[in-house]
Amino acid sequence: MGVDPGLTRCGVAVVEGRPGARPALIAAGVVRTGPDMPHEYRLLRLEEGLTEWYDGYRPEALSIERVFAQHNLHSVTGISQAAGIAMLIGARHATPVELHTPSEAKAAVTGSGHADKKQVGTMVARILGLAEPPRPIDAADAVALAITQLWRGEVENKYAQAVAAARRKVS
Amino acid sequence: MGVDPGLTRCGVAVVEGRPGARPALIAAGVVRTGPDMPHEYRLLRLEEGLTEWYDGYRPEALSIERVFAQHNLHSVTGISQAAGIAMLIGARHATPVELHTPSEAKAAVTGSGHADKKQVGTMVARILGLAEPPRPIDAADAVALAITQLWRGEVENKYAQAVAAARRKVS
Repeated sequence: MGVDPGLTRCGVAVVEGRPGARPALIAAGVVRTGPDMPHEYRLLRLEEGLTEWYDGYRPEALSIERVFAQHNLHSVTGISQAAGIAMLIGARHATPVELHTPSEAKAAVTGSGHADKKQVGTMVARILGLAEPPRPIDAADAVALAITQLWRGEVENKYAQAVAAARRKVS
Repeated sequence: MGVDPGLTRCGVAVVEGRPGARPALIAAGVVRTGPDMPHEYRLLRLEEGLTEWYDGYRPEALSIERVFAQHNLHSVTGISQAAGIAMLIGARHATPVELHTPSEAKAAVTGSGHADKKQVGTMVARILGLAEPPRPIDAADAVALAITQLWRGEVENKYAQAVAAARRKVS
């Protein structure tokens, strides 16, 4: 499950896959909290929304965007707190949590860490075998984060498999 | 209950008071999380620790330090998340949450927003009628935050009382 943290719009996406198969998009969406609510109730609403997503899909791992220096202090605070809530949910269920920078997610799906939003959407659609980028558009980054995690997992699996194969040859 | 948010050391203090009486220190302490733990488990441990404090004292209000621009990005992330966890606990129990900047807390207890740590400790001890600044020293800022909230609440109460008295006179 990928999470693009935010207080006003928090993108969420669930992607399924295994080594050697095309990843499949299971669900994509956004948890919204109203900017007119007191800050602490926005955090509570976000926690409820992300918990519903978690409980609905029971993901094997959480891939969360790492908070990055390009934001201003006010948005860093909200983004950090949203990411923190997603991390808390992972820790509560002992589900592995990985953080990826926006550049890592872009590079994973497009080959370039500087790709724009449109390019990310196009490549995400191609990878998933969809005619169009996933909707809502707010969720595209969360889809990219989920694919990044899946593929990084695959790479590690393949590496682990290669190591295991080499060991079998040696012994 | 005052909370000086932090991931490595989160100061907590419970102060009791009512208009016209000297505030009393009920408890002060620190919730610590090990820097060697995965980040998401530090957040979970902090949530457990702050929940224990909340459940132990059932405070009428939470006074949390507002995240401020003087920190670097890495510490802003941890401080924001720690503050967010304290805010979440407040929202879960429908307990009022107020944020105060470090300057506001310093000004409330010393009269100056630029007071140093020692001065804050000295004044906090004087206000509470203690021979020495409250220990642990990490909790001094949390004590100042709790007093700030208490006094701001008093000011509002006095203002509300004055308004009510004026209305009674008019009618």
